[in-house]
Amino acid sequence: MGKNKKKELASMEENFPQWYTDVISKTEMVDYAPVKGFMVIRPYGYAIWENIQSETDKRFKATGHQNMYFPLLIPESYLKKEAEHVEGFAPEVAWVTQGGDKELNERLAIRPTSETIIASMYSKWLNSYRQLPFLYNQWCSVVRWEKTTRPFLRTSEFLWQEGHTLHETPEEAQEETLQMLNIYREVLEDVLAIPVIAGIKSPKETFAGAKATYTVESLMHDGQALQSGTSHNLGQGFTKAFDITYLDRNNQQAYPYHTSWGMSTRVIGAMIMVHGDENGLVVPPKVAPIQVVVLPIAAKKEGVLDKAYEIKDRLKERFRVEIDDSDNSPGWKFNQWEMKGVPIRLEIGPKDIEKEQVVLARRDTGEKISVAFSDLEDEIERLLGEIQQNLYDKALKRREEKTSSAENLEEFKTKLKENPGFIKAMWCGDEECEDKINEETGATLRCIPFDAEQETIGDGKCVYCGKPASKMAYFARAY
Amino acid sequence: MGKNKKKELASMEENFPQWYTDVISKTEMVDYAPVKGFMVIRPYGYAIWENIQSETDKRFKATGHQNMYFPLLIPESYLKKEAEHVEGFAPEVAWVTQGGDKELNERLAIRPTSETIIASMYSKWLNSYRQLPFLYNQWCSVVRWEKTTRPFLRTSEFLWQEGHTLHETPEEAQEETLQMLNIYREVLEDVLAIPVIAGIKSPKETFAGAKATYTVESLMHDGQALQSGTSHNLGQGFTKAFDITYLDRNNQQAYPYHTSWGMSTRVIGAMIMVHGDENGLVVPPKVAPIQVVVLPIAAKKEGVLDKAYEIKDRLKERFRVEIDDSDNSPGWKFNQWEMKGVPIRLEIGPKDIEKEQVVLARRDTGEKISVAFSDLEDEIERLLGEIQQNLYDKALKRREEKTSSAENLEEFKTKLKENPGFIKAMWCGDEECEDKINEETGATLRCIPFDAEQETIGDGKCVYCGKPASKMAYFARAY
Repeated sequence: MGKNKKKELASMEENFPQWYTDVISKTEMVDYAPVKGFMVIRPYGYAIWENIQSETDKRFKATGHQNMYFPLLIPESYLKKEAEHVEGFAPEVAWVTQGGDKELNERLAIRPTSETIIASMYSKWLNSYRQLPFLYNQWCSVVRWEKTTRPFLRTSEFLWQEGHTLHETPEEAQEETLQMLNIYREVLEDVLAIPVIAGIKSPKETFAGAKATYTVESLMHDGQALQSGTSHNLGQGFTKAFDITYLDRNNQQAYPYHTSWGMSTRVIGAMIMVHGDENGLVVPPKVAPIQVVVLPIAAKKEGVLDKAYEIKDRLKERFRVEIDDSDNSPGWKFNQWEMKGVPIRLEIGPKDIEKEQVVLARRDTGEKISVAFSDLEDEIERLLGEIQQNLYDKALKRREEKTSSAENLEEFKTKLKENPGFIKAMWCGDEECEDKINEETGATLRCIPFDAEQETIGDGKCVYCGKPASKMAYFARAY
Repeated sequence: MGKNKKKELASMEENFPQWYTDVISKTEMVDYAPVKGFMVIRPYGYAIWENIQSETDKRFKATGHQNMYFPLLIPESYLKKEAEHVEGFAPEVAWVTQGGDKELNERLAIRPTSETIIASMYSKWLNSYRQLPFLYNQWCSVVRWEKTTRPFLRTSEFLWQEGHTLHETPEEAQEETLQMLNIYREVLEDVLAIPVIAGIKSPKETFAGAKATYTVESLMHDGQALQSGTSHNLGQGFTKAFDITYLDRNNQQAYPYHTSWGMSTRVIGAMIMVHGDENGLVVPPKVAPIQVVVLPIAAKKEGVLDKAYEIKDRLKERFRVEIDDSDNSPGWKFNQWEMKGVPIRLEIGPKDIEKEQVVLARRDTGEKISVAFSDLEDEIERLLGEIQQNLYDKALKRREEKTSSAENLEEFKTKLKENPGFIKAMWCGDEECEDKINEETGATLRCIPFDAEQETIGDGKCVYCGKPASKMAYFARAY
């Protein structure tokens, strides 16, 4: 009987989608709501989101941003004010048409994103350059009516944050756009242990109404990419459409420059699909709802349970810790907590107590070590740091193994088939080439990396049309 | 020119509703959204909510509760499963009838509260008594289509938390109901410095579908009451309607006992209307977004600004502190920060620097004291504690002054007119008497206090019908 069988998980190598579905259900992270495409985030999933939120919000505040709350419902006429925006979002809007017993005069959209309603308020609030920049964010849920859904990855409602800022100059807006992208990179890499490729989206993949969209892209275990956070330089499109004007330093009426940026519960999906293994979840210590689980061994022997509780209470001061003193067998418990991805399992039995030590088992490597009672906190601190780093290193190595480059379409197809993952290839900038690559390979252009990460593949010719190309782009099949 | 004129605030004694509207707009706590009845919570208001949230959430977690997230949209058929519940909420539901381009087969309610959808999930999750109790909460927004609205007090969308728990026995459910009511009392009294009357609602005022509703009631400056948090013992009404069953300790199928409890952004309205004065907001230190504002005096004199920044940076380690180094006049600044209700104003000018001291001015009393640089942190800590306590004491004294008792309807009317506030009066328990009192006085029955706070008014006869009455109740006009 294989390990998976015990946990009733599909094998991730044989059937990755089923493995994903099994893991998220059996670890009780999420469940399916009565309305198709909607999810219930259960305590184990939500606690991870709370940790991600707190790490992210801290960084927003440290860079001078404040939180607000804008209403859930947006009048249809507002959505229509920015032409590209409404075209992009209208097909997936949920519409409120009745309030109480009455038919409404105008349909109200449940926010799919809040640029329009926020722009309308900014236009009311902004008078003088002295008030700029506006640096605001909100944490909320949004609704986008999706046809095909999967919990965390694509759902008709999801939780996210959306930042919306105004600036005096285009340079400041660009700087903000990149600063926030960098915060997403930090949260993904330093907090979630997920290495990312940062860069700009092609015009085709740019946010509806934006001048430029920047993205951080991560690579899942199955070689598919996941857009993990985006930051938009909105230029003056919305500020003009919503007539946001102010008196500038020269006492002239001017339009400010605008950015928006968002990261959602999707990143929980990324965390699962980057770090998970055949035994289930592997949760990075910095976001783990439980960092250490204490398992009393032979708990009925005198003194064991007391000592286990004593240690749990001691560790609670510094770590997120739980004890499992249920009647289940040790083997069952090992499997359960392994599946839940708890970074460290702490075992304590009569023999350990005699020796004044415990056994610590790492979720990421399976390695076990004995640690004296007296060294416990320091050793756990060290181990958690090591696990966090190891998860990042492993994910980076895997991404590098799954990244190829291609000089022509045949090579592109072959490599994508033989080693699914990122394909680095030159692109001439023509949308037709982008479309054709997608049609023939199923891969989309994920991003064009920044200059510092640019390189020339082969002789610098577009992988599709063979014309000279100045930029290398990352392509992949994507969620 | 009176103080109010300078700040363009209406006088709270002359026109309380206008004072409220002025204060919330001019301090930039909140603004009106494009859709009537909806509000935008601006950074100064939202930061207060974040502080309330964090104080409340901490207490939920300390009592073993975990957070989750349930979907925004609820199928109409779910709302209808509990007969009283749908009757209570249907008239104020916002309905989604279109998703993307399609008409939906079934209308979806934007949650007005989540008992029904949560009960449906609980019915899926609960199998055995070993899983009980279920102790879950969610922070979210809800929509109730209201006719007459006022920011924070009554809006068509508001932010809140809703806890939903399941228990093995009716005793445990009752204990939970009262425990959570007590947490609301703590948050209101210890954090928001608002004294409350706790008790049970009359059947007429009980939550739609509940067995019993408990409430904490606070009294505003104008003598009107505000329901500030409610905790419901739901009995088995929803667990039966949604067929939530489990195998109990005797291996029998059983229905669990159910509670729910909520507190919302309304309490920000209470905070404003309990502590505010003719000069604007007075924010209790524990929730103040800014606890100390540093004002450099004669800031252009050499060294003043540097010293002011040095002090701000020093204080930042322990307090929420801001500096105002704008070009506005000191008088203008004093008024602004006073209006915003910042608990302590710290002034520092050339003479202070010479003497190595600052001046601290209290928002609640106006009192000013000089404090040496070396004692700053300790003195501020002490002052903030004193302000917090003083706000509570003042509010309690005011509530006591505004609480009368009445033995018959004439006395009830006279006292309510002469001294608007709480009227303590005996009530026989008959809904007809409750209705008549309301019709003739405009007051509603706010709550029947717990036995420990019960007293007999006059000869113990019902204030309306004169029949023997076993309980004293609090009545008031209410928001």
